[in-house]
Amino acid sequence: MHPHPPVRSNQDVCDSSHAQLFERVCTHARQTAVLASVESLLGWDEQTMMPPKAATHRAAQAEAVATLVHRQRSDPGYGEQLESLASGPLAQEGTPQIRTTIRLLRKDFDKNARVPERLVGALAKTCVEAQQAWVTARAESSWSTLEPWLRQVFDLKRELAACQMPGADPYDALLDDYEPGGRWATIAAQFNELRAEIVPLVQACAAATRRPDDAIARRHYPVADQQRFVREVAARIGFDFQRGRLDTTKHPFCSGLGPDDCRITTRWDAHSLPTALYGVLHEAGHGLYEQGLPTEWYGLPPGEAASLGIHESQSRLWENLVGRSPEFWEWCFPLTQAAFPDALADATAAGVQQSLMVVRPSLIRVEADEVTYNLHVMMRFDLERAVVHGELAVADLPEAWNDRFARDFGFRPPSDAEGVLQDIHWSAGLIGYFPTYTLGNIFAAQLMAAAVRHLPDLSDDLAAGRFGGLLSWLRQHVHAHGRRFESAALVEQATGQQVSARWLVESLWRRYGQPHGLS
Amino acid sequence: MHPHPPVRSNQDVCDSSHAQLFERVCTHARQTAVLASVESLLGWDEQTMMPPKAATHRAAQAEAVATLVHRQRSDPGYGEQLESLASGPLAQEGTPQIRTTIRLLRKDFDKNARVPERLVGALAKTCVEAQQAWVTARAESSWSTLEPWLRQVFDLKRELAACQMPGADPYDALLDDYEPGGRWATIAAQFNELRAEIVPLVQACAAATRRPDDAIARRHYPVADQQRFVREVAARIGFDFQRGRLDTTKHPFCSGLGPDDCRITTRWDAHSLPTALYGVLHEAGHGLYEQGLPTEWYGLPPGEAASLGIHESQSRLWENLVGRSPEFWEWCFPLTQAAFPDALADATAAGVQQSLMVVRPSLIRVEADEVTYNLHVMMRFDLERAVVHGELAVADLPEAWNDRFARDFGFRPPSDAEGVLQDIHWSAGLIGYFPTYTLGNIFAAQLMAAAVRHLPDLSDDLAAGRFGGLLSWLRQHVHAHGRRFESAALVEQATGQQVSARWLVESLWRRYGQPHGLS
Repeated sequence: MHPHPPVRSNQDVCDSSHAQLFERVCTHARQTAVLASVESLLGWDEQTMMPPKAATHRAAQAEAVATLVHRQRSDPGYGEQLESLASGPLAQEGTPQIRTTIRLLRKDFDKNARVPERLVGALAKTCVEAQQAWVTARAESSWSTLEPWLRQVFDLKRELAACQMPGADPYDALLDDYEPGGRWATIAAQFNELRAEIVPLVQACAAATRRPDDAIARRHYPVADQQRFVREVAARIGFDFQRGRLDTTKHPFCSGLGPDDCRITTRWDAHSLPTALYGVLHEAGHGLYEQGLPTEWYGLPPGEAASLGIHESQSRLWENLVGRSPEFWEWCFPLTQAAFPDALADATAAGVQQSLMVVRPSLIRVEADEVTYNLHVMMRFDLERAVVHGELAVADLPEAWNDRFARDFGFRPPSDAEGVLQDIHWSAGLIGYFPTYTLGNIFAAQLMAAAVRHLPDLSDDLAAGRFGGLLSWLRQHVHAHGRRFESAALVEQATGQQVSARWLVESLWRRYGQPHGLS
Repeated sequence: MHPHPPVRSNQDVCDSSHAQLFERVCTHARQTAVLASVESLLGWDEQTMMPPKAATHRAAQAEAVATLVHRQRSDPGYGEQLESLASGPLAQEGTPQIRTTIRLLRKDFDKNARVPERLVGALAKTCVEAQQAWVTARAESSWSTLEPWLRQVFDLKRELAACQMPGADPYDALLDDYEPGGRWATIAAQFNELRAEIVPLVQACAAATRRPDDAIARRHYPVADQQRFVREVAARIGFDFQRGRLDTTKHPFCSGLGPDDCRITTRWDAHSLPTALYGVLHEAGHGLYEQGLPTEWYGLPPGEAASLGIHESQSRLWENLVGRSPEFWEWCFPLTQAAFPDALADATAAGVQQSLMVVRPSLIRVEADEVTYNLHVMMRFDLERAVVHGELAVADLPEAWNDRFARDFGFRPPSDAEGVLQDIHWSAGLIGYFPTYTLGNIFAAQLMAAAVRHLPDLSDDLAAGRFGGLLSWLRQHVHAHGRRFESAALVEQATGQQVSARWLVESLWRRYGQPHGLS
C-alpha cells in the first residue's frame, strides 16, 4: 500500500484525489478478496477431491493463505486510506454503493485490525485440533474427549469478541461475523414467539389421526438416475452450470469461489428420494444468491452477501416453500416419474408431495423435518448464548442439552453422540452461527409471502415450471443489494413489513396442518 | 524475515547460530513451497474442475498467488541469510543434504532475485494472452494470429535469460529452469547421434514387409470399464491413491500439489485401448517419482525432482519400457481380457502386445508412436534454439518447420495447424522445455538397461505383475536423491556409465525391429 496523495485546496483536485483514493482502496479490497477466494478453493477441494493422506499439507496451505489474507485485511496503510475516505466527501455524497463500500470496508478493517495475528493463529490451530477431537468424541460418544477443547474454543472466541467489538455484548460481537448488526436479545424474542407456536404444532402432528406416509419416498431410486435428475431440476430453477458445478460430499454445502464459480454439493441415498433432491434444492438456493450478487462489485460490500441469515433464507425458500409445494410437484412429478419409472409407476403428484410432509421429532438436526428443525436450532442458540455470557459452564452443556431437548421434544437423547456431540460447529469455532439457520426460515417465509402478494401468477408459474418470475423478484429485492442493508432492513424493505416470525408460523401451520388433518 | 544473529567468536555459539540460521532459511523456503503448491492446485482445478466461465477470476487468483510467491522467493533478508550460510561452515561441513540445500537455495535465490517483478508480471500476462491467441490460431490455422505474440514471448524470455544467468548462453539459461546445468551443445550432440539412427529405423519400418496390426487395439472398450481397469493397473505398479487421484482432461498431466497429494489425469477413447492405458502408465510414472521423493525434505532441494528430463525418464520407463513389453502383457493380458471380455474374446497376450508396436510417421507429436516421437521433439529443439540464438526469425518458423519435417518424415504438413501451430508450449513461454522429452527417453533407456543388469529376476517379476523390485531400484537410485545431482551426474551414478543415447537406439531397434521383421 502506498499513502494517498495529500488533499489539495482546489476542489477538482480534491474530488479527483478522493476518487483515486477510493479506487486504490477498492483495488486492495478486491485483491484481498481474490486471495480469500483461494482459501475457499482449498476448503472446497479438501471436502470433495483431496486424497485422504493430504490433510496435513492442506492445513499448511490454508494457514499460509489465511495469514496473508489477515495481513492484507489489517494493513495499516490501507486503514489510513479508509479513515481519510470515511472523513472525506465521498462518504457523504457518493452513490449509495460508494457510501456502502466506504462504511463497511471501514467497519471490517476496524474489526480485523484489532485482532492480533497471535489470536488469529491460535484460533485457527485450536479449531483444527478441536475438530479432530470432535471426530473422536462423537465416534466414541465421549464428552470428556471434547470438553477441554470446547473450553479453549469458547475462551478464545470470547477473547476475539472483546478484540473485534470492544464494549459490545460478547455474543452480539460474535454474531456480527455471521449476521451483521444482529442482536441476541431481538433474536431471543423472535425465537421465543416461534417456539411457543412450534412445540404445540409438533405435538398436534404427533397426536393427529391422519398422518402423511413417506413410504413412497423410500423406494429404490438408482443413484445414477438421481444424478441426472437433480442436475436438471437445479438448472431448471436457474442454477447456472456454466458458472458452477455439483459434486458429492457427506455434508452438503455451497461455496462461492469467485464471481462466476459457485460450487454446490449433495449426498446420495438410493433408498431416499428427498435426500439428494432437497440437498440440491437447498444448496442451489444458496447458489442462486451467489450467482445473483452484482459481479461488477465482486470483492466489495455491494457485491457480497448481506448475512448468513439472508443466505439461508434463499436456500430455505427454494428447498421448502417452493420445493415442497403442491404446485412444484404438479410440474416436477412427470419429470420425476420419467426419471424413476420403476419406483413411481403407481404414484401421483399429490402422493409424492404428501410423502414429504412428515413431521417426526428426532435426535439429529441435519435429518430433522422442516417443522422440528427450528427446535433444534433454537436450543443451540440458547445454550451457546448462555455459555458465552458465563451463565452456563461448558462442563454443564450435556445435561443442559438433554434437559432442554426433553422439554421441547418429549424424550431424552440416549447418548451424547446423538445429543450435544452431534454438530461440528462449536469445535470449529462457529459460535453465533446456529441462529442464522432459523433466522433464514423466518426471512424466507416473510419474503415468500411478499412474493406471493407481488406476483399474482406465481402459483400458475410454479405449476408450469416457470421459476424466472420468482427468481427475478428475489434478484431485485434481495440479491441486487449485496451487503448494503443489514438483514432486518433488507427484509423490511423487500416486504414492506417489520421482521416477524408470524409468516413462518402461519406457513408451517398451513402447510403441515392440512396433511395432518388439523384445522 | 528477520536478520540472523551475529556470529560470535565462541565456536559452539557459532555452530548453533548457523544451525538456527539454516532452520530459518529452510522454514522460509518451505513456506514458499507451500504457497507455490497452492498455485499448483489452482492450475489442476482449472484443467479438471473449474466451471467454464470462471477463467477470468482464476487468472486473477493465479496472478495474486504467483506475485506473493515471487516476493517470498526474492526476499532480500532471505538472500542475506543464504549468503551468510553459503560462506559459513555448514556449506562445507554439513551433511550432503544440508550442503545441497544451501547450494541450490542460493542458486535459486540468485536467479529469482535478479528478475524484476515487472518482468515476472509481463511474462505471466503475455503468456496468458499468447495462449488465448494460440487457441484461435490453431483453430483457424492462422499463423499471422500467433506470430506477433510469439515474437513478444521470445523477446521476454531472452530478457529473462539475461536476468537469470547474466553472461550465460541464453538458451542454456532458459534450459536451466527445466534441466538444471544442461547445455544445449551437449544435447545437440546427443540428439544428432540419435536422429542419425532413428530416421533409418523409421524408414526401415515403413519399408518392412511385416508390420504390426493395431486393429485389435481399436475395438470397442467401454469407457466405464477402462476407468476401473486403468486404476487397477496404476495401483498395481505402485501409484498410491491414498496420496493421489486420477481425473479426466483433454491433455493428460501429472501435478504434485504437496508431499502426499499427487494428481494424474488421462483422456478416454472408447475405440482405443492404448489412449487411456498409456496415458495413465505415463502419468503414474511421473506420479511414482513424485510419491518417491523424500517427504521429510518437502519444499527443499533434497525433496525436489532433479529435472524435467529425469521426471520424463520415470514416466517413459513405465509407459514404454515396462508397459509395452511382452513380460508386462504376460501379466496384464488376463486382467485386460477380464475387463473387456467382448473386445478380447479371441485375443492373445502376444497379439495385444504386438498391436502396440506400430511405427507410423504422423503429423501430431502427442499422437506419435514411441519411435517417431523423438523426431518431433528434436526438430522443436533445433528450431527454438535457433530462434533464441537469433539464427532464425520467428516469422520464418513455419517454413523452417515444414522443411525440417519433410526431411525427417518424408512429407510436408498440409497446414500450419498440423505443423508449427500444434503445440501450446511456445505461447505458454515454455522455451527450453521440449528437449527434456527426448532426454527423458535417453535417460529411461539407460536406467532400464542398468536395472536389468542389477535385477536378475526382473523379467520374471514383470511377467508375474511384481513391480516392487523395479520401483525400489528407482527409489534408491533416482528418487531418493531429490535434486542433489544434476541429471547427467544422477544417471551416471545410477548406471555406472556416461550418459549416451546408445541405450535408447539399441532399445528402439531391438523392440521395434523384431515385430517389423528387421534383423
